[in-house]
Amino acid sequence: VNGVIIGVGDERLIGQIVNSNAAFIGRALEEAGVRVLRTAVVGDDAGAITRAFDEALRDATLTICTGGLGPTPDDLTKRTAAEYFGMRLETDPEHSRRIAALLAARGIPWGPAADEQSLVPKGATVIPNPTGTAAGLLFERAGRRLVLLPGVPQEMTRMMTDSVIPVVSSLPGRMAIRHRTIRTSGAGEQTLHGRIGDALPGGADLAYLPSLTGVRLRITARGGSAGEVERAVAEAEAHLVERVGRFIYGEEEEELETVVGRLLAAGSLTLAVAESCTGGLVARKITSVPGASGYFLGGVVAYSNNLKTKLLDVPPNVIERFGAVSEECARAMAAGIRAATGADIGLSVTGIAGPSGGTPEKPVGLVWTAVADGETTRAARHQFGEGRERVTERACTALLLMAWETLMARSG
Amino acid sequence: VNGVIIGVGDERLIGQIVNSNAAFIGRALEEAGVRVLRTAVVGDDAGAITRAFDEALRDATLTICTGGLGPTPDDLTKRTAAEYFGMRLETDPEHSRRIAALLAARGIPWGPAADEQSLVPKGATVIPNPTGTAAGLLFERAGRRLVLLPGVPQEMTRMMTDSVIPVVSSLPGRMAIRHRTIRTSGAGEQTLHGRIGDALPGGADLAYLPSLTGVRLRITARGGSAGEVERAVAEAEAHLVERVGRFIYGEEEEELETVVGRLLAAGSLTLAVAESCTGGLVARKITSVPGASGYFLGGVVAYSNNLKTKLLDVPPNVIERFGAVSEECARAMAAGIRAATGADIGLSVTGIAGPSGGTPEKPVGLVWTAVADGETTRAARHQFGEGRERVTERACTALLLMAWETLMARSG
Repeated sequence: VNGVIIGVGDERLIGQIVNSNAAFIGRALEEAGVRVLRTAVVGDDAGAITRAFDEALRDATLTICTGGLGPTPDDLTKRTAAEYFGMRLETDPEHSRRIAALLAARGIPWGPAADEQSLVPKGATVIPNPTGTAAGLLFERAGRRLVLLPGVPQEMTRMMTDSVIPVVSSLPGRMAIRHRTIRTSGAGEQTLHGRIGDALPGGADLAYLPSLTGVRLRITARGGSAGEVERAVAEAEAHLVERVGRFIYGEEEEELETVVGRLLAAGSLTLAVAESCTGGLVARKITSVPGASGYFLGGVVAYSNNLKTKLLDVPPNVIERFGAVSEECARAMAAGIRAATGADIGLSVTGIAGPSGGTPEKPVGLVWTAVADGETTRAARHQFGEGRERVTERACTALLLMAWETLMARSG
Repeated sequence: VNGVIIGVGDERLIGQIVNSNAAFIGRALEEAGVRVLRTAVVGDDAGAITRAFDEALRDATLTICTGGLGPTPDDLTKRTAAEYFGMRLETDPEHSRRIAALLAARGIPWGPAADEQSLVPKGATVIPNPTGTAAGLLFERAGRRLVLLPGVPQEMTRMMTDSVIPVVSSLPGRMAIRHRTIRTSGAGEQTLHGRIGDALPGGADLAYLPSLTGVRLRITARGGSAGEVERAVAEAEAHLVERVGRFIYGEEEEELETVVGRLLAAGSLTLAVAESCTGGLVARKITSVPGASGYFLGGVVAYSNNLKTKLLDVPPNVIERFGAVSEECARAMAAGIRAATGADIGLSVTGIAGPSGGTPEKPVGLVWTAVADGETTRAARHQFGEGRERVTERACTALLLMAWETLMARSG
């Protein structure tokens, strides 16, 4: 099975939206054993869409096309596909009922847009969309499949996972392929590469995927039998654990905050956080994990010095003497949030996110993090370079990493 | 002039990297008056690259291709292009000197990779790369141009801006084109479309770009003279202001939190926020704007009921009688954060983000927001459907929108 990915929409073509849909779909297809030949983006133009269908169906047995399924006049994908396959549009009663339920739940009255969204090419298979009004559609002709999905990432990803991948996974002729992602934090790409070396035992490929929260190591084994690729991945993973094990905190889609949350839940511990320069990002990441209310009590975003004193009980003379961005202030904040909330573990971060506010002694990018667990309070200094987004993301990661280390040390 | 954008690289194809290069190039070309026909991504495969060149040069007068210009064996773009145009590779002395200087500055010795990077197809024009070893290359044949650029975003963007766009801007036959993006919040795509109607006066096109924070309306006028497209955009904008003006909060890249921040700064007002279900997202958005420390004092993420009482002074009997997700609690939180911080304006949000925690009376997605400004406290009820990410993003937007309305009413 080989595949082509098409995106439809002027906004992707002229760069108002980065086409992250293609990345998600490419990865999902590759993991399901489909060889992706290419991806394409075309504008909201029936001629361009038709031509993209033509070229895709000529080369690939599976084509996934996103975008252009909305109810407005610039949405042309559904009508163009219907014409391409010689199908008439008619109202699909079941999909229409789903739209009605969705609109009712959101308190929106039925209107002409809902009529339009209920229309489906007769002969195509409807792929349910649990969270939107655009139906997914599957067309088949002479062993070639074309899938249309909405361009809204939340809707598309859910439909890919729930409906499209199960169908793809049942197709014959897929490659033997195995991926495995090992997540690291606390070491850069070059450090990791120096320790791991150029080639993996077992012949698998390794990709370094750096981001502001760490470097993911992606092992890929292709070809041969299912057993062979399985063995190659296992050998590669053992090599990584041996060489860079101390930087590995998780695997696959597991973020640091998820791992930290699991350790907290397992130890029946509670957490609270005091943030300054990260402005709520640490709390936001922690609470993005479903079930966080089981261990996260809350936090204080103490952006002004006054709030550090008032809500976190940081002694005013600490701020006067050492400044708000200092080891002493970070320690006082971590202890303060612990005391204010009664949490088992208190985290804190204070720094200079920029672009302004830096001095020669305390430049932009300087960050202090601290963890207080009632027995000890640890603090660490970081220098993260420039860029507000970069500094805050890396500060957040450094703090979560410190929390992870503390929890690992406590648990054994 | 019309254009095609090609990206080369397995990592883009299988979704290890999001292809943000295409978005940047698409936008740059469109702004220079080039009509972008499509973008494509192909793998590290000479056959696929050749075919992509063929299709691009058939349809477009200008093709920009990124990636595959490195020195490793999987980098095939330069050799494939040389073969495609029937050119021999030879060392380019000037480019070779640039590489030598670059390596010297980084303390890297000259090696086989530098030899490889010095080779250039004889007959192609070299586009200087100030920050990397890969030469950009321009090929011309029968009035069609193919530009090769490295895939490293920092190198590519600089070369596009410094060298490619100046050449493009001198080509005859470019379109007159004007874009304008109007940002709305508080109304869905369907509501906006119902009010705006199918066609814009003046003949410009309108695209609806929905996200969880609102719908952007993108006006595009093409063709004719510069004066004509300018007029068409102005007419379209006047129409939008007339029809949906009350939902318009900004334009182009301006986020709601930026506009709110500007109004606060203009009025010399300070802000603080008390969050529950959004878990820090509101504070994070507000502090993502450079200069936020000028008006944002801080916030409390009161995830547990105990913290709502302890840090925000919400009376325990309010939570007992009405629950933490209630109008009464939202009002008490907004007033409480205002009092605790001394801010002019206090914002609050409390709701059920899910996936668990819902009841028939208070389902997942129920959110209360409130704004207290010392004179009055306004509260609003929302029902946002399912999905933790969706509920928190929309709750945050609803609260920022309420803050915006309050500030607009005060200032006007």
